[in-house]
Amino acid sequence: MANIFSNIPSELSSEIFEEIINTEKLRIERIVSKGHVSPDRGWYDQVENEWVIVLSGNGEIEYINGDKIMLKQGDYLHIKAHEKHRVVATSTDEPTVWLAIFY
Amino acid sequence: MANIFSNIPSELSSEIFEEIINTEKLRIERIVSKGHVSPDRGWYDQVENEWVIVLSGNGEIEYINGDKIMLKQGDYLHIKAHEKHRVVATSTDEPTVWLAIFY
Repeated sequence: MANIFSNIPSELSSEIFEEIINTEKLRIERIVSKGHVSPDRGWYDQVENEWVIVLSGNGEIEYINGDKIMLKQGDYLHIKAHEKHRVVATSTDEPTVWLAIFY
Repeated sequence: MANIFSNIPSELSSEIFEEIINTEKLRIERIVSKGHVSPDRGWYDQVENEWVIVLSGNGEIEYINGDKIMLKQGDYLHIKAHEKHRVVATSTDEPTVWLAIFY
């Protein structure tokens, strides 16, 4: 047993990406952000589908068509493979903990 | 977008099992309990692996060898296929929201 909120460093100079499970069928990752956003240029263009939920803090996702979605605690989203997106904001006062399932 | 904590009925006469995603690779389910436990006799003996996290409330899992694990908010557990287990307690004062990924 482990806890999704444990072992979060107080200083997050960069985002943390941690694999929880990695099998041929799926990958479960914890991502911890604190004010981090995607690099200025470019988009995530993923070969896998992603189901993602925000478990603490908040984060804003932008799609390439300009749509923006703010995710708060408990909000989840399904991002299909090759649906270009990026993270344009994450909370600065507390860590944003994302749980992402790639498949 | 949807929220994992939304649409929880105030009266939970039985556990709620809801599919969020169901593909050939994996199934994501929300399970909501409130004082519910597994039926007295018998064990869950699943053909799929299960990764499960408690997002609110708490729940206690028992394995067939007698080991018990109490899961609180954020605690997660990997239950391999055919690892016989059951739920022996869930919180009665608030709903227990489980997020389970079967694969």
